Amino acid sequence: MQDLNAVQSLAVWAVLVVSLLGIGYAFFIRSQILAQDTGTPKMREVWGFIKTGANAYLSQQFRTISILIVILTFVLAASVFIIPPTTEAVERFGSEEAATLWVAIGRAVAFLMGSLFSYAVGYVGMNVAVEGNVRVAAASRKGYNPALQVAYKSGSVTGMLTVGLGLLGGTLIFMVFGIAAPDALLGFGFGGSLIALFMRVGGGIYTKAADVGADLVGKVEAGIPEDDPRNAAVIADLVGDNVGDCAGMAADVFESFEVTLVSALILGLVLGDAVVGTIGDGAYDLRFIIFPLVLRAIGVVASVIGNLFVTTDERKRNAMAAMNRGFYIAAGLAIAASAAATPIFMVDEATGIVDWRPFFATLSGVVLAVVLDKLTEYFTSTHFSPVKETSKASQTGSATNILSGLALGMESSVWAILVISASIFTSVLIYSGEPAATQFTAILYGVSLTGIGMLLLTGNTISMDSFGPISDNANGIGEMAGLDKNARNVMDDLDAVGNTTKAVTKGIAIGSAVIAAVALYGSYFTDVNKVLQQMIAKGEQGIELLSSINVAAPTVFIGLLIGGAVPFLFSSLTIRAVSRAAAQIVNEVRRQFRIPGLMEGKVQPDYARAVQISTTAAQKELISLGLIAVLVPIIVGFTLGVEALGGFLAGIILTGQLMAVFQANAGGAWDNAKKYIEEGNFGGKHSEPHKAAVVGDTVGDPLKDTAGPALNPMIKVINLVALIIAPIVVTIKPGSPGVIVAMILCVAALIWAIWQSKRESETLKEIAQAPASAD
Amino acid sequence: MQDLNAVQSLAVWAVLVVSLLGIGYAFFIRSQILAQDTGTPKMREVWGFIKTGANAYLSQQFRTISILIVILTFVLAASVFIIPPTTEAVERFGSEEAATLWVAIGRAVAFLMGSLFSYAVGYVGMNVAVEGNVRVAAASRKGYNPALQVAYKSGSVTGMLTVGLGLLGGTLIFMVFGIAAPDALLGFGFGGSLIALFMRVGGGIYTKAADVGADLVGKVEAGIPEDDPRNAAVIADLVGDNVGDCAGMAADVFESFEVTLVSALILGLVLGDAVVGTIGDGAYDLRFIIFPLVLRAIGVVASVIGNLFVTTDERKRNAMAAMNRGFYIAAGLAIAASAAATPIFMVDEATGIVDWRPFFATLSGVVLAVVLDKLTEYFTSTHFSPVKETSKASQTGSATNILSGLALGMESSVWAILVISASIFTSVLIYSGEPAATQFTAILYGVSLTGIGMLLLTGNTISMDSFGPISDNANGIGEMAGLDKNARNVMDDLDAVGNTTKAVTKGIAIGSAVIAAVALYGSYFTDVNKVLQQMIAKGEQGIELLSSINVAAPTVFIGLLIGGAVPFLFSSLTIRAVSRAAAQIVNEVRRQFRIPGLMEGKVQPDYARAVQISTTAAQKELISLGLIAVLVPIIVGFTLGVEALGGFLAGIILTGQLMAVFQANAGGAWDNAKKYIEEGNFGGKHSEPHKAAVVGDTVGDPLKDTAGPALNPMIKVINLVALIIAPIVVTIKPGSPGVIVAMILCVAALIWAIWQSKRESETLKEIAQAPASAD
Repeated sequence: MQDLNAVQSLAVWAVLVVSLLGIGYAFFIRSQILAQDTGTPKMREVWGFIKTGANAYLSQQFRTISILIVILTFVLAASVFIIPPTTEAVERFGSEEAATLWVAIGRAVAFLMGSLFSYAVGYVGMNVAVEGNVRVAAASRKGYNPALQVAYKSGSVTGMLTVGLGLLGGTLIFMVFGIAAPDALLGFGFGGSLIALFMRVGGGIYTKAADVGADLVGKVEAGIPEDDPRNAAVIADLVGDNVGDCAGMAADVFESFEVTLVSALILGLVLGDAVVGTIGDGAYDLRFIIFPLVLRAIGVVASVIGNLFVTTDERKRNAMAAMNRGFYIAAGLAIAASAAATPIFMVDEATGIVDWRPFFATLSGVVLAVVLDKLTEYFTSTHFSPVKETSKASQTGSATNILSGLALGMESSVWAILVISASIFTSVLIYSGEPAATQFTAILYGVSLTGIGMLLLTGNTISMDSFGPISDNANGIGEMAGLDKNARNVMDDLDAVGNTTKAVTKGIAIGSAVIAAVALYGSYFTDVNKVLQQMIAKGEQGIELLSSINVAAPTVFIGLLIGGAVPFLFSSLTIRAVSRAAAQIVNEVRRQFRIPGLMEGKVQPDYARAVQISTTAAQKELISLGLIAVLVPIIVGFTLGVEALGGFLAGIILTGQLMAVFQANAGGAWDNAKKYIEEGNFGGKHSEPHKAAVVGDTVGDPLKDTAGPALNPMIKVINLVALIIAPIVVTIKPGSPGVIVAMILCVAALIWAIWQSKRESETLKEIAQAPASAD
Repeated sequence: MQDLNAVQSLAVWAVLVVSLLGIGYAFFIRSQILAQDTGTPKMREVWGFIKTGANAYLSQQFRTISILIVILTFVLAASVFIIPPTTEAVERFGSEEAATLWVAIGRAVAFLMGSLFSYAVGYVGMNVAVEGNVRVAAASRKGYNPALQVAYKSGSVTGMLTVGLGLLGGTLIFMVFGIAAPDALLGFGFGGSLIALFMRVGGGIYTKAADVGADLVGKVEAGIPEDDPRNAAVIADLVGDNVGDCAGMAADVFESFEVTLVSALILGLVLGDAVVGTIGDGAYDLRFIIFPLVLRAIGVVASVIGNLFVTTDERKRNAMAAMNRGFYIAAGLAIAASAAATPIFMVDEATGIVDWRPFFATLSGVVLAVVLDKLTEYFTSTHFSPVKETSKASQTGSATNILSGLALGMESSVWAILVISASIFTSVLIYSGEPAATQFTAILYGVSLTGIGMLLLTGNTISMDSFGPISDNANGIGEMAGLDKNARNVMDDLDAVGNTTKAVTKGIAIGSAVIAAVALYGSYFTDVNKVLQQMIAKGEQGIELLSSINVAAPTVFIGLLIGGAVPFLFSSLTIRAVSRAAAQIVNEVRRQFRIPGLMEGKVQPDYARAVQISTTAAQKELISLGLIAVLVPIIVGFTLGVEALGGFLAGIILTGQLMAVFQANAGGAWDNAKKYIEEGNFGGKHSEPHKAAVVGDTVGDPLKDTAGPALNPMIKVINLVALIIAPIVVTIKPGSPGVIVAMILCVAALIWAIWQSKRESETLKEIAQAPASAD
């Protein structure tokens, strides 16, 4: 870190300490939660089922994906040897050989680190949620605030771990690699995103297969309540909340948190190179890198302080107000501290002029998060006209309810994309005075800071988000263990608040994913040109810089078309996986209902079989969907070239965003349209409109919790793969026999992956035919 | 036409004659149909209701949109005066003043002509369908072949009129304007597309509001058969088939037919300019223009001949085989004739070398049409696994049926876009040997020929398509008029075949729309640079040619995002309009069911009120959706600039294609999943799976017949608006006070249009509250 001044060096160490403190704080709260009461033996019994199911799922998942992770680690390390090292790496490590070796090791280790951190966040998040569930249920017997405390703090463990590990990884890589950090950061981001994709896909399929199956056969067919212990799928459903909503969401946000930092550092380095002397002269202004790290550290500290204010008293019983108070205090602190940090870290040493633009870009991210919040709330909350309209449409049956939700979801994606466009445009305006040579990079640097701003309060966001499934599960345990009415009332209320916080934070997750993807997209263009420049400098013939990604060129347009199709393919495959698995759950539960004595409550259902079906169904998709995400950019890049790959990325970001918001909000609206009817409107519970709304809710489940959320990490995995292969694409001759053979193999693998995802699972068929243990 | 040689001059006249012959042939068959028997008085009574409703709708529609058409005609003429005339126009008409005046008049007249032709195709198509319906029903009493003849020939009237008028317009404009034709052709295309948009939106809302409403309350609630005379919405439903499927589809395909020709002529002129001497020297090689005209004429003649072979005998009773025979004979003839025409029209006069590439591009269009056919069939026919899977999913309820259809629709859009990408890539390969300077234009010229190839047999395609709603309506008249079993069997069979032909031709309509849009998109880039070049030639300062549409640039990326959102907005608004109107129909029919004596068949329902509701609901959306299509590109262009407008167009084509196919195929699959169950699978009619499948079918109705098809003309209206305003965007200074004021007005108008579309119709409320005439 030869280019750092004293303040900057100190800051980097301070950031490292903050990240460790964040992690330490997470484990401190965790121990507090573990010390709480776990309630009655009956509660512990139910909890035991959930715990076993959840742990079994995640360790099974770990085994499934670990092979792929090991293979990719070696591939990543090996791929470095194909291309010459960057000038930065050579400068950092002395010689070409040393640079190649270090980058190979660095990228592989960073990839492993990113994967493990992402997995750890998901695993611990799920684990603490499972531990928290039963303790929230137990605490609800004592009162409202005790229950709120346990639920929110359980979420905070995940929140603080997310920000702590995210910051730790980025800082460590920067400390070791210095100006060569981007080489390793790509690996870090890729690892995190890939695991997040697995967590989202697997968790999403698991939770919704169980949920849809349980609802279809329990609520719709048999007319028994949700979480009724006679329903064999109910434990799988509760497990699903943990593996999908907690583990999946945590890994997903961790990944966005990471990737915004990765793109800020990559773009900050380019900018830092450009503003001092000429590009590639070895002189850097590192403030563009230090500032994002400092912002992140500020966010961590602000979140910790804000979380302390999340408390309510027994008279008010207002969990939403408590959480909002914590959030707004944290936001105020973070903004003030960022403003204070700007004159220290964003000052030009030579002239003494303070550059306020990065601060404003960050601030616009905070604003964007709030606006997306409100937008999501407008389209998915029972208090506004869209959801009311969908409820009203249920009066004429489930078809009109579905149509209304589809229309609402599509419309909401239009407004969301306009808000995101406006925030990118804000960055364009902020940097409109920048000289032409660096304007492009500066604007995208601004976009990445907007992403950092959106996720500044990730600690709070994740706490609020995890609060949802934890209260939901607590309520389920309460129902199954037959808790008294007072306790149930407390949990019902917390559950309702949890539904709101969950929906609202989903808007931020999707928005930040797109902003992160746009920033990454900027890095793509910059990165490709860096490699090309280096090749030209070495005297290679016939090489031109990439002046643009011209969608008017036919091959680039083809790239755009193919890219745009990928989110449709992903959504199709995940929805199909859920509905296939749900149908199997339905058959299983129906079968168990016929067991004599079960409906009378004398015989306990075989919960494990439903858990097994969900687990198997989720596992089956992991490898194939992971392969699709990795293979498609490789095929497009090596077949159509580096510019078409750029068009491809643009297509994926565009439809990925549209489809993610469409599916998330349509699903959220159907869910709440049903709730609105249950509140006594249009005939209330058990009326015909209610039955119609239940259909909509069921359709929405995989859309909002599987297909939609899986698109966030998918977009970034594909972006990162593109970034990693781009230097190889420009180096290797297109159409050479080796490339053609490799492409044929890739296409074959891709077809296999799609076929594998679409076909029925053999294992599931075996489960269905095996003699049942409960018979 | 100073640059035409003798053969070419002769060919242009021959093309003109062929187009007139096509129109004449259409009216000849029409008179044949009108001479047929109209059946029993009861049949004529039902037919009278349909006729009145259909005519009332189209004349109401004509009044609603005629104001907008008149305003736009003047705006178009006036807009020409803002920008300097093209060098081609000056060359053609002698002076700048004359050129401006001629182009202004030419564009306005061409716009009016395009609108009127498009309207005429729709109007005559609907009219002959209505006349044909009752005659098919009457002929079905005589036998299978007589009924088939009337049904198919009624469709042929529309088919031949479409190709005749499309060819006539293009040829006339070329004869008058010569090398300045593009200026007027844009107006012609715009008029045709705009009316097609109105026909699709209005007709689509009308037909599906009536259909969904009738089904929901008749089939689902009351359990009475489709087309039961006691259902007050049944006449509106039958009217809807005519205004939506006949008028809408005819106008839509007419527009694609036109636009592919427009883009082929625009690109052909650029190419013809480039291959002779230097660009802008006034020397042209016009064979690139003559060839598409000749191809079109060949298609018209081939269609006429093919149609003669559509006949079956009473033993075989195979309508599908008869229509396929006609199609394949026409295809064979057309391909052979195109091959024969190539050495005559695509020969380089100087060297004598024949250029076979345009022929291959055309051939690839014919292949594309067949592949898209098969693809649509695979995803929407009961003979393949996707629809069977959706039927199977109905066993676990409507939610899983819906999910399965959604997944299937999304997947089908992926394959469709891959097929289209492959056909664009074919053009890239065909023109890979072209010199770099003209390669880009040549590839896009190839794409436009692919579009012409796809629509070569439009005469047959439309005949087959219209056959669907005509048999459907005949069947409805048969049901309502109580025809005997033999006749009903004939019509049932024709109806089933009609469903297949309708679905299959929809694939061609969407595919050709995208190909046409891609070709137009190519013209956009070419056109903008032509204007810029002219400005540079005039010595204007600070102007640079547009080297690319660079999606990596932030503003262009914003354009892409906004463009991608537009199809979601359109789909959302149209779906909502349908479900709102359907709910009103449901209430109306429910009310009428309560009228004493109605359910016993003693009292006739008030059919007119349901017709009135559908008509009003459809009319309400026309102006607002038309405004959105016209305003959004204007706002994007003048706010973000001409390059961002290019990104915007790319976004719209991408998601427009994906959403169009997704919605069309999901809808088609739900429809046939229901039919598959009705054939006796999974419990057959009236089983629980069947009820679940009916929900899916109802959801699919507005998706496949309103929202999806409306996207085809919408994509092209927006593309043509962009092409028309592009020269103004580059001429006018951005950020000038006049532009800012204009933009504020445009945004206000846009917001009004969206609000207007979303709100409930006051007129409909009045209808609902008015005392009913039948009470």
